[in-house]
Amino acid sequence: MPRIVVDVMPKPEILDPQGKAIAGALPRIGLTGFASVRQGKRFELSVDGEVTEQILEQAHQAAATLLSNPVIEDVTRVEVIEEDAS
Amino acid sequence: MPRIVVDVMPKPEILDPQGKAIAGALPRIGLTGFASVRQGKRFELSVDGEVTEQILEQAHQAAATLLSNPVIEDVTRVEVIEEDAS
Repeated sequence: MPRIVVDVMPKPEILDPQGKAIAGALPRIGLTGFASVRQGKRFELSVDGEVTEQILEQAHQAAATLLSNPVIEDVTRVEVIEEDAS
Repeated sequence: MPRIVVDVMPKPEILDPQGKAIAGALPRIGLTGFASVRQGKRFELSVDGEVTEQILEQAHQAAATLLSNPVIEDVTRVEVIEEDAS
């Protein structure tokens, strides 16, 4: 079953407290290789049958309205994946 | 600045109430092309300088311990991206 992946990340100028908390926790478990962390969301929309132009357009609409808040978040990816594992 | 992307998704056998809520909301705004939705997390770990083998190994460790709960989630991707936009 094909899926459409939608990635949503906090805008660069928006504070990301979850990312900051992770960045603070990493050194405490000995992982010191990272300068900063941002946390976003990843959605997988499953499609019955083929991904038509119309369904891809629907995915873009969903990404821009339901899946992200355009005031504080950017949609960084809307992409069809066909394989079972991603 | 290179970044390492970590994707974490709920295991297929685990109920995903957020995904279910989105799947229920899509038809209400006229988007009827989707069979189901899963919601996961996407992390971007920024690295100062080069991504060495050691830092990539640290990213895998972070993904398996801090960024995911292995009881209910799968790490589906740990990948270096070099470009500014993803």
